Amino acid sequence: MINFRPVVFTLGTFLSMLSGFMLIPLSFSLIYAEDTSIAFIQATVLTSIAASICIHQGQKSRIHLNIREMFILTSITWFVVSLFAALPFTFYHGITYSDAFFETMSGVTTTGSTVLSGLDDMAHSILIWRSLLQWLGGIGFIVMAVAVLPFLNVGGMRLFRTESSDWSDKSTPRTQDMAKNLFFIYILLSLACALSYHLAGMTWFEAINHAMTTISTGGYSTSDQSMSHFSHSAQWISTLFMLAGGLPLIIFVQCIALRTLLVWKDAQVVGFVKFLAFVSIVLAVWYWFTHDGTHPLDALRLAAFNVVSVVTTTGYGLTDYGAWGAFSFIIFLFLMSVGSCSGSTSGGIKIFRFQIAFAIMREQLKVQFHPNGVFTEKYNNRSIQPDIVRSLVTFMLLYAAVVIVITIILVLTHLDPMTSLTAALTAVANVGPGLGDIIGPSGNFSSLSDTAKWVLSIGMLLGRLEIITVAVIIHPKFWKF
Amino acid sequence: MINFRPVVFTLGTFLSMLSGFMLIPLSFSLIYAEDTSIAFIQATVLTSIAASICIHQGQKSRIHLNIREMFILTSITWFVVSLFAALPFTFYHGITYSDAFFETMSGVTTTGSTVLSGLDDMAHSILIWRSLLQWLGGIGFIVMAVAVLPFLNVGGMRLFRTESSDWSDKSTPRTQDMAKNLFFIYILLSLACALSYHLAGMTWFEAINHAMTTISTGGYSTSDQSMSHFSHSAQWISTLFMLAGGLPLIIFVQCIALRTLLVWKDAQVVGFVKFLAFVSIVLAVWYWFTHDGTHPLDALRLAAFNVVSVVTTTGYGLTDYGAWGAFSFIIFLFLMSVGSCSGSTSGGIKIFRFQIAFAIMREQLKVQFHPNGVFTEKYNNRSIQPDIVRSLVTFMLLYAAVVIVITIILVLTHLDPMTSLTAALTAVANVGPGLGDIIGPSGNFSSLSDTAKWVLSIGMLLGRLEIITVAVIIHPKFWKF
Ligand SMILES: [K+]
Ligand SMILES: [K+]
Repeated sequence: MINFRPVVFTLGTFLSMLSGFMLIPLSFSLIYAEDTSIAFIQATVLTSIAASICIHQGQKSRIHLNIREMFILTSITWFVVSLFAALPFTFYHGITYSDAFFETMSGVTTTGSTVLSGLDDMAHSILIWRSLLQWLGGIGFIVMAVAVLPFLNVGGMRLFRTESSDWSDKSTPRTQDMAKNLFFIYILLSLACALSYHLAGMTWFEAINHAMTTISTGGYSTSDQSMSHFSHSAQWISTLFMLAGGLPLIIFVQCIALRTLLVWKDAQVVGFVKFLAFVSIVLAVWYWFTHDGTHPLDALRLAAFNVVSVVTTTGYGLTDYGAWGAFSFIIFLFLMSVGSCSGSTSGGIKIFRFQIAFAIMREQLKVQFHPNGVFTEKYNNRSIQPDIVRSLVTFMLLYAAVVIVITIILVLTHLDPMTSLTAALTAVANVGPGLGDIIGPSGNFSSLSDTAKWVLSIGMLLGRLEIITVAVIIHPKFWKF
Repeated sequence: MINFRPVVFTLGTFLSMLSGFMLIPLSFSLIYAEDTSIAFIQATVLTSIAASICIHQGQKSRIHLNIREMFILTSITWFVVSLFAALPFTFYHGITYSDAFFETMSGVTTTGSTVLSGLDDMAHSILIWRSLLQWLGGIGFIVMAVAVLPFLNVGGMRLFRTESSDWSDKSTPRTQDMAKNLFFIYILLSLACALSYHLAGMTWFEAINHAMTTISTGGYSTSDQSMSHFSHSAQWISTLFMLAGGLPLIIFVQCIALRTLLVWKDAQVVGFVKFLAFVSIVLAVWYWFTHDGTHPLDALRLAAFNVVSVVTTTGYGLTDYGAWGAFSFIIFLFLMSVGSCSGSTSGGIKIFRFQIAFAIMREQLKVQFHPNGVFTEKYNNRSIQPDIVRSLVTFMLLYAAVVIVITIILVLTHLDPMTSLTAALTAVANVGPGLGDIIGPSGNFSSLSDTAKWVLSIGMLLGRLEIITVAVIIHPKFWKF
């Protein structure tokens, strides 16, 4: 029997945290004497009311939710929190609630697709709220990916089950410790990033905003020109910290705890870095050959920045890479779904799934002509059990199905095929920009219909929840006892 | 130890069969008094010489090839046979050998992409040679899919292993019986198709050519207008026989043997027909709504014909469906890789692989919140063993990799992204036409560069061999003892 009351209670605590965080943009509003204060006060009050209703109607009977309740909570929290987090946009800007919700969902899922323009002249409080949503969404997702998803074995993530994702009673303190450590590292990285940005010429306000959206691989900017608004050194710093954002955060915790660079022993990290280096160099060489008069270092900067931006699913723009030529167009189209490491803030299919598929392939080709051969492939020293393989198939099938369905719906809203396909891909992988004139790195999602915006919002959420989390709840068996 | 001499011998027998079949277009050439006779005589002589060299250098020591030799033979036969089958085109037409090889590979793999135009005025002998290549390629592939691939367990095809694909000594007569039965049904279906086409208004020559390219899901036509050159009733007949071509041929054998319509108990056939019906109706309704003044029956004819043509990977054109609008464009883009039933002449991913993936998904979602649940999914009353799942993963990964690599190479030959992507998809799935102005149903592959043509030829062959057959031989372990 599913008891909804602990779910509602936990949701209430999340909402009350949200109303607390709304005080940050409110203070910016007051400090900079902006006319956004009323909007933030209204939003804070409404969110607080909803939070207290939830907390009072809910029930704090147990610390642990059971597995069904955890599935439900995981799926609805992001949605409900976004419903309230969208309020300041609609109260202040007078933009439609669809636009506000799209912007918010794009924020908390760290997608970074935007419907707003004129960012350079926008109120500081609104800008910081957008960045904060991404920063909170980023750490929220990491804690979910480290502590909840492996426990639910979503899409083969049982591979990443650690003692921190063991939800028996005795491990609770360990889980809480791990969450604290993750927060600590996340804040540390953000501060380092902000400081570096400032040293590279950004104002403190720009540096803080971009640090929050870099480490979370979110991609919101304070300028319509995104990162091309800033210095070359800022762009290199951005590349470095986006890369850090694409690594499993837990690796940093372990490095510090064990005082060793064991990060280089992790198959996922090694594969990820090698892949980025390879694609960046290929693209840099191609760019250098096809764009006369480019300095090799500039070609490398442009290629590395954009590749890291797309693969880590950050989505910062730095010139419209889709317009470089057909070769880069197709490369970025394929890169859009790759994703980074599991346990990072980035979306997409993720490197480990490709690595598992490749490991399966290698072994399968080996045993192909030895019909009685035994399958023994390992990944990161754990053997690839049949349930991992089935989970991988399930994930890939659902991923493709979601992209196809969203693309078809978008085409029916009169978007062209390529815009529809890349919009679906970019939303589900939480990248941000698509390809083409409308939603490419130089474009904007504001011209899309409301239907398209809601469908894409749901696509972002599905991607963020690794799809299976949601698929499980809509499975009829989930509701049978 | 791999002994190449039996492989060379078997190859020689295939080449001598090829030279025998060249006598058919030669007789057409003589009957219609065409100037193509010399070309066919030259080609026949050269092929015969090559055949006798192979037969003499080879060794008919054993009837049975071992599993390694079978892998090698399967992979190189199609390639070498195509090298010789291309000769008449280049001797007569004076087209480049690249074009001739592309046309031939496109023929024997039943892809049906063409570089020739002016088909309506072309020599009968050349036209019949094109159709014959597809017809022979079709039955050749079916025998391979029924008798060889399940034995090699290529891409999960162990599911289709029957006593006919048991290669122990005692089963040889049964395998030969099965091959004879398949030939018999194939000829019977072709005759029925030709007769129906003739009754629907085609000349006997047109009827015979189109029957050969319909049953083989090849798609070559005797007219530049493809099927839109013929009557509506011919188009309906075509839809019906393309559908038959997409069914497992062995089902017809079993129906006749057991005098029952057990075809409807086969999960793959049922899934295939339901899928075609669903997509055709959706597309017909959409077409009817968006194209004013269309009779509902015409909408259904256009939708059903084009859907069946693409999904069975026949590739006959009937108006440029890519130009109907963005919705149909994206639908046909996705349909291009679906494919039909295993054991038919059609290419693509094939229905059973999707069905297995869905079965895995259903079960995985069910056990997702029962961590100790037991996985028991079945397909066609056979349980889905882990090796089937791994084989599926391997196939999908290789399929995607081949499409991506070919797309990237095509883009580097200065094709636009969408043409490159659909050219790669249509080649690997053996469909024929792509999407867009250049290679769409109204276009032609002649304007592509030689590099593009060779790469696409290899893509067609890889697709036809279900990719894994080739991947196995390039695996280093294959050559180690
Ligand atoms: K992003
Ligand atoms: K075809």
